[in-house]
Amino acid sequence: MNSGLSFLLAARQCEIRELEQLAGTSELVSLLARFAHALQRERGIANLFLASQGAGFGEQRLVQMAECLQIEAQVRERFGRLDTGGDSVRNGARLFSRVAGVLHSLDGLHGVREAIAGRAISTKEATAAMVRVINGLLGVVFEAVDSATDPEISRALVALFNFMQGKEFAGQERAFGCALFASGRPEPGGKSQWQHLIDSQQACFQVFADFADFEVLAADRASADLRGLAELERLRRIGFSQLEGGRPDSGMAQLWYDCCTRRLDTMRELEELQAEHLRVLCERKIAQARTELRDQQAVLEALAAQPGAGGTPQAPHYGPQLERSILGMVQEQARRLQAMSDELDAVRASLNERKVVERAKGLLMAAQQLTEAEAYKTLRQMAMNQNRRVVDVAENILAMADVLPSRAR
Amino acid sequence: MNSGLSFLLAARQCEIRELEQLAGTSELVSLLARFAHALQRERGIANLFLASQGAGFGEQRLVQMAECLQIEAQVRERFGRLDTGGDSVRNGARLFSRVAGVLHSLDGLHGVREAIAGRAISTKEATAAMVRVINGLLGVVFEAVDSATDPEISRALVALFNFMQGKEFAGQERAFGCALFASGRPEPGGKSQWQHLIDSQQACFQVFADFADFEVLAADRASADLRGLAELERLRRIGFSQLEGGRPDSGMAQLWYDCCTRRLDTMRELEELQAEHLRVLCERKIAQARTELRDQQAVLEALAAQPGAGGTPQAPHYGPQLERSILGMVQEQARRLQAMSDELDAVRASLNERKVVERAKGLLMAAQQLTEAEAYKTLRQMAMNQNRRVVDVAENILAMADVLPSRAR
Repeated sequence: MNSGLSFLLAARQCEIRELEQLAGTSELVSLLARFAHALQRERGIANLFLASQGAGFGEQRLVQMAECLQIEAQVRERFGRLDTGGDSVRNGARLFSRVAGVLHSLDGLHGVREAIAGRAISTKEATAAMVRVINGLLGVVFEAVDSATDPEISRALVALFNFMQGKEFAGQERAFGCALFASGRPEPGGKSQWQHLIDSQQACFQVFADFADFEVLAADRASADLRGLAELERLRRIGFSQLEGGRPDSGMAQLWYDCCTRRLDTMRELEELQAEHLRVLCERKIAQARTELRDQQAVLEALAAQPGAGGTPQAPHYGPQLERSILGMVQEQARRLQAMSDELDAVRASLNERKVVERAKGLLMAAQQLTEAEAYKTLRQMAMNQNRRVVDVAENILAMADVLPSRAR
Repeated sequence: MNSGLSFLLAARQCEIRELEQLAGTSELVSLLARFAHALQRERGIANLFLASQGAGFGEQRLVQMAECLQIEAQVRERFGRLDTGGDSVRNGARLFSRVAGVLHSLDGLHGVREAIAGRAISTKEATAAMVRVINGLLGVVFEAVDSATDPEISRALVALFNFMQGKEFAGQERAFGCALFASGRPEPGGKSQWQHLIDSQQACFQVFADFADFEVLAADRASADLRGLAELERLRRIGFSQLEGGRPDSGMAQLWYDCCTRRLDTMRELEELQAEHLRVLCERKIAQARTELRDQQAVLEALAAQPGAGGTPQAPHYGPQLERSILGMVQEQARRLQAMSDELDAVRASLNERKVVERAKGLLMAAQQLTEAEAYKTLRQMAMNQNRRVVDVAENILAMADVLPSRAR
């Protein structure tokens, strides 16, 4: 077979290898979703434990900690199997750097857990430490998703990533509400922080809905009742009035915790469904690509064996009809890859928008010494005032980066 | 060393491997630029040969053909060394598919050359066949550039790619003018075709100027005189009046060929300068990354050996001060990679704009049965009328793709 045709096959084999790597990536993302969920539970229980002055939830906390440690071992083992010495991990530098960050924050959890046991840490600090670990996990997931090369799988991964991110905001809202109801003492700026958590969930679930496939969305809608949104909204309303200054109410705290936990557990089921869909999707795509490769190989071998195929490998001569068949295959493959690349660009646009908003937020935080919630609020307010999308305002801010004052510089 | 720190080093090693791959990519791009130049010369000489009814340029043509075949052997050898079985080629599927296309069109050149020798092919057909091969080479270069992961090298590659593309339009303009002056018979639509070639050069050289580094731009300006732009503009003016209907003028054809060829040869020198800059840049970056890796390794080993570093590899304990140093390194690396990624996004935006315009052109061509030149003219006219950038208009057209009629569907 001449070298042009062998490159045609090499391109297809490359696609298959990329799909196989994506299957591995999807499996990693699924494991991290499970780990994030376990940590979210541990965070919620630790909050209740601390709020009860250690009087309750001690045993539940130990059980949940054991589960976390068990999944952590799996995660460490999975990280250890990443091909750090080879080239098969796309986006390797950024992915490994994120993994280093996660492992570092995991190492720190040991001390945090001891401090929680000894009640030598505030609810706020304990929550912040767990948030750091989970954000680190989401960072790994983001890089993994960012490296996807197949548009259909990329869509599913973008949906799952945004779902995980929205679920984490829901988890932070649970922790926030637990602390509020249990203490009765609202933090300054609590209202805007809470609103930020609610809006952020909304934004993430919107992207999820844009990218998730039909079956996942149907399951999502079917489980909406289970999540008891009406009850959640009622408790939110009570909580918001609590922000005007109330008194500790451990009954409300428990009610809030249970309501949020039901919601998070239902979300976890949907995550599992998405993970399973991803697994099946990858398998199907790999099988399909292998079949197509075999078919193409057979056609090319038949072509090469036909009378009229002659010449040297360097300058083969196939006759006009065979030439046209080969040209057709070359063009068809180029068209298909181009279409895939275009579709991938469209999916990745949503990831890029996220990057732009994150960068603009970071810039505002540094330039004006704002918290993340305040920076996001500023962005949203500007967008509303100018009647434009948040991402467009963010782009504008980045374009003006050089003229913004920054205390960080 | 614990696993978090080893991932820190793995990220850096990954960067080094990516830079080494980029050095290989840059070398490939340089070779393809040399090949494209040789083919452009052969195309120009073949046009003169055909226009002179085989009376002149026969020997020059044989010499140039021999040079092309010699570089082609090098190109085939280089393609053969691409890692088609491994994972080291980023963007492999699309790159290999483009290589398959190039090799196929190179196989076809043999017949085209025989037809030229026997004067059994029109100037237009001969030109079209060579244009296909050179466009194929540019396609390979585009995919190679699209896979770059280092922002500085990516900038240099984007500059070089656009320069090559602009030079090819200049080469097509040379062929167009040769045919016009030699035949005296303008083709229908010749004026808009010529204008398209001039505008396309302009657009490419603008992007080149936006991305090329200072030294390359200085060399570009210094050689502007050598390219005899005034003479070119004078001949263009005469040519445009010729379009109203003139008579064959082989003297003018020769003058035009010489003027354009001087220009293309000077451009080739600038390409060589860019290729050399790229080579040095890659070397410098690789050396720098290796030094940084060694430094980091030394620091981490010193940290691990210090008193206070204890615990198990699974849950190491470094003491608060060491913890902070490690955290600092993790955060610094994450920040640096993030900054690189942001910068890369900005450089790649220009590649994406190109993709968007190409897709919109393709859509217009299919929907309204336009030539490429007409489609581009339509885009430009719409942009002027709406006072917007061509890429914004192109994006709009893509957004309306579903409602555009298409005879191709």
